[in-house]
Amino acid sequence: MAKQEDIFKNVISHAKEYGFIFPSSEIYDGLSAVYDYAQNGVELKKNIREYWWRAMVQMHENIVGLDAAILMHPTTWKASGHVDAFNDPLIDNKDSKKRYRADVLIEDYAEKLNQKAEKEIEKARARFGEAFDEQQYRTTNPRVMEYLSKKKEILERMAKSLDSGDLDDVKALIEELEIACPESGSKNWTEVRQFNLMFGTKLGASAENAMDLYLRPETAQGIFVNFLNVQKTGRMKIPFGIAQTGKAFRNEIVARQFIFRMREFEQMEMQFFVKPGEEIKWYEYWKETRLKWHQSLGLGNENYRFHDHEKLAHYANAAADIEFNFPFGFKELEGIHSRTDFDLKAHEQYSGKKLQYFDTEENKNYVPYVVETSVGLDRMFLAVFSKSLVEETLEDGTTRTVLRLPSVLAPTKAAVLPLVKKDGLPEIAKQIIDDLKWEFNVTYDEKDAVGRRYRRQDALGTPFCITVDHQTIEDQTVTLRHRDSMMQDRVKIDALRDIINENVSVKNWLLKAK
Amino acid sequence: MAKQEDIFKNVISHAKEYGFIFPSSEIYDGLSAVYDYAQNGVELKKNIREYWWRAMVQMHENIVGLDAAILMHPTTWKASGHVDAFNDPLIDNKDSKKRYRADVLIEDYAEKLNQKAEKEIEKARARFGEAFDEQQYRTTNPRVMEYLSKKKEILERMAKSLDSGDLDDVKALIEELEIACPESGSKNWTEVRQFNLMFGTKLGASAENAMDLYLRPETAQGIFVNFLNVQKTGRMKIPFGIAQTGKAFRNEIVARQFIFRMREFEQMEMQFFVKPGEEIKWYEYWKETRLKWHQSLGLGNENYRFHDHEKLAHYANAAADIEFNFPFGFKELEGIHSRTDFDLKAHEQYSGKKLQYFDTEENKNYVPYVVETSVGLDRMFLAVFSKSLVEETLEDGTTRTVLRLPSVLAPTKAAVLPLVKKDGLPEIAKQIIDDLKWEFNVTYDEKDAVGRRYRRQDALGTPFCITVDHQTIEDQTVTLRHRDSMMQDRVKIDALRDIINENVSVKNWLLKAK
Repeated sequence: MAKQEDIFKNVISHAKEYGFIFPSSEIYDGLSAVYDYAQNGVELKKNIREYWWRAMVQMHENIVGLDAAILMHPTTWKASGHVDAFNDPLIDNKDSKKRYRADVLIEDYAEKLNQKAEKEIEKARARFGEAFDEQQYRTTNPRVMEYLSKKKEILERMAKSLDSGDLDDVKALIEELEIACPESGSKNWTEVRQFNLMFGTKLGASAENAMDLYLRPETAQGIFVNFLNVQKTGRMKIPFGIAQTGKAFRNEIVARQFIFRMREFEQMEMQFFVKPGEEIKWYEYWKETRLKWHQSLGLGNENYRFHDHEKLAHYANAAADIEFNFPFGFKELEGIHSRTDFDLKAHEQYSGKKLQYFDTEENKNYVPYVVETSVGLDRMFLAVFSKSLVEETLEDGTTRTVLRLPSVLAPTKAAVLPLVKKDGLPEIAKQIIDDLKWEFNVTYDEKDAVGRRYRRQDALGTPFCITVDHQTIEDQTVTLRHRDSMMQDRVKIDALRDIINENVSVKNWLLKAK
Repeated sequence: MAKQEDIFKNVISHAKEYGFIFPSSEIYDGLSAVYDYAQNGVELKKNIREYWWRAMVQMHENIVGLDAAILMHPTTWKASGHVDAFNDPLIDNKDSKKRYRADVLIEDYAEKLNQKAEKEIEKARARFGEAFDEQQYRTTNPRVMEYLSKKKEILERMAKSLDSGDLDDVKALIEELEIACPESGSKNWTEVRQFNLMFGTKLGASAENAMDLYLRPETAQGIFVNFLNVQKTGRMKIPFGIAQTGKAFRNEIVARQFIFRMREFEQMEMQFFVKPGEEIKWYEYWKETRLKWHQSLGLGNENYRFHDHEKLAHYANAAADIEFNFPFGFKELEGIHSRTDFDLKAHEQYSGKKLQYFDTEENKNYVPYVVETSVGLDRMFLAVFSKSLVEETLEDGTTRTVLRLPSVLAPTKAAVLPLVKKDGLPEIAKQIIDDLKWEFNVTYDEKDAVGRRYRRQDALGTPFCITVDHQTIEDQTVTLRHRDSMMQDRVKIDALRDIINENVSVKNWLLKAK
């Protein structure tokens, strides 16, 4: 655990020090749970977005894009259920004046019971050695069983109360468990109240005419309200998809874990419209397809797993997460949801407009079913960044920090380095940059010894360093140094473009997802 | 004038019919002055953004990117002056309850005087024929002179009153001119009040702890507050630039002209940090460089002009617009501003942090001066789209609608069309798509006669149509049809990739800006 925390701290400080992510408005001491993407972060984020877009839109004949506005007509959020049900249950401590999510307080309590059970198990393991049978111990040791059954009981009661809207019982549970304010230790709690997570704003100037708007809490509804316009003007035939990337906003009370859960974040969503009855086939298809896409990046297949939802949202008839092994454990990276016709029907009801598709094969109208794939772009950034950052011990005993980003996503593809700042070497280096920059992001660096420059590029995730030396003047060759292996080749300047392209092209990386 | 209005209406309806732009939340009767980019619009918009990014960031060794959040610490907007001074003067009609921008009411009145003068001039031109000397008539005809001098007087008085904050005099002017509510004809007006254009929202759940935030009204401040973080972690040396694209929001009272002035819009801004005293040199450099970039798209150099500001904003010591010939006349497309050290100094003052650069050559610290280039991405979209849309009369007397988009920006680069839906032609067409789609957005169409399919692709702006026919089976050649000339070549399938690439590559287009 301590190790994981250290890794995570290291990720955050590396992201800042090397110009990937800064706290928002840092000169004003920051804005909680909002971050800015810095000069290298913006390129990595762009490359992830583009890698997704290419795979989803450009490669699929039957998927098109969309870019709906953040501001939408407010009835959209009535229809989607967000106005009424997109809430967190909050509770205030009367002494400390601190506010908490009631469900998180209870979950934290349950997690402590879990940790107690795990501690018992670890003690037993140490005692019994190789002969230890964990599964048997879990189901026979009275103390472990008590911890775990108590945990289960608490979580089930909480879920039931939240589902039925019985907030009094949620408070009663907190009091029965004698949960105290983590800050002050006080058990003097207010009632539990529901708090809507949408950011509100007002359109128009006069108080009487102002319209209450929301910053969208998800991009999906922008696709649903445009479904028929896209289908008709694009002459789309079912099954087809509409894909979108864009910002969404949630007024999270407890936002944490760096860019994993932010108040302003970016989604990459695709809604796939299918014939009713075929949704499970397509749900399975997209689960597999999306997993392969993630795995194509080569971060290690063992870092991904499916988590099938047992408890389904009111709009879904099947749902799964692709979880990733983040520095703080396996957490949701992408969701694949079979949303039925819930959303389109709700919009039909609230708008009074038909949102139906005429199926020429079946010769009838119907409201399509929807299978959704939804990745958090910032989470994806954190997944790629954290898994790529490694501290290596080299053969000579020294260590190096290297950001082993998939080269297709690396902010800079190559750094061009003159061995020395004279003898015309900088001029040759700049000439190489002028040739390559049309195709790739390339950078120039002449400061410090070449070894230090290599290390700096390693920390930035640059896959190639191209060093210009005196031999270059004679034979038009340069040293090409590879980030991961640190191997160096001698290659012709003319060959650079093809070598880099072969290594970083979206095409070659996407082919790994096949 | 009538002609221009027709063209503009045609632009708006073509944008909707061919899947470029839809009104936001149209099933809920739309949200005023907010639009969604549809399946083809999103690609055109992406391509414009990428064309800018490649030119500004990738091609310049000393310019890096940034992606700051929309939500920022609210003190940012105190420092920038937006909280105190980003206002429109509003006036309400007491009878109709309609609200107007007081300055727009006065400007509209002045414009009517102008139109009266123009009408007199046109009448005189018709009377005198070729002998007519417009310049002389303008400066000698008493009626024309009176209209124009009255117009000038009104606008000058309004500007003076607004500058000094004398809103009573703005109202007095409206009353003196007997300006009536355009809707009701009533002259029963309220006082004029300043209304701030920023959208507000609240961060956090509890009333007492909630923080008043704004949706950023411009992206520039995100660059200023990150200036030192970028400079230090990126080891940037002056002169250097930080570039950013992203959404901004303005609660415009009278938003109009389609996507020209929206409440939610996207900016492409670059702030260039220079040594104090060198700002005018760089201002001139960026004026020329940006104009050439626009001209590289081949929409006609006569459609661009500079408008140098005579009256400068409080933060600027030089400013110019690049204006474009929109369907409603020449209007601002991009602004180039020499902003001095106003912004960085203001942030120093409000944050208490030093925002200085240590110049190793001069061996001293200073606050850099800033030259800004700022394009509205949506305006750029409107410029490109409206100028590309033409109705042509062909030799045979028929007309065709063609969207002559610069091919580098076209949403789809090629459509692959089997001549007939049998004999294996669709299979060959799909094979061609599978080869090309790794590099380009390509589309397949087999519906209707091939002539109609050509026209459809013309209206979508697709530069190439590739037709597969029976000869293709024999010799692996296809017909390559060019959108603008409608010429057709017979080419080998193997040659398609290079031909298309040569025509659409960002590199080849950007080279025209050199």
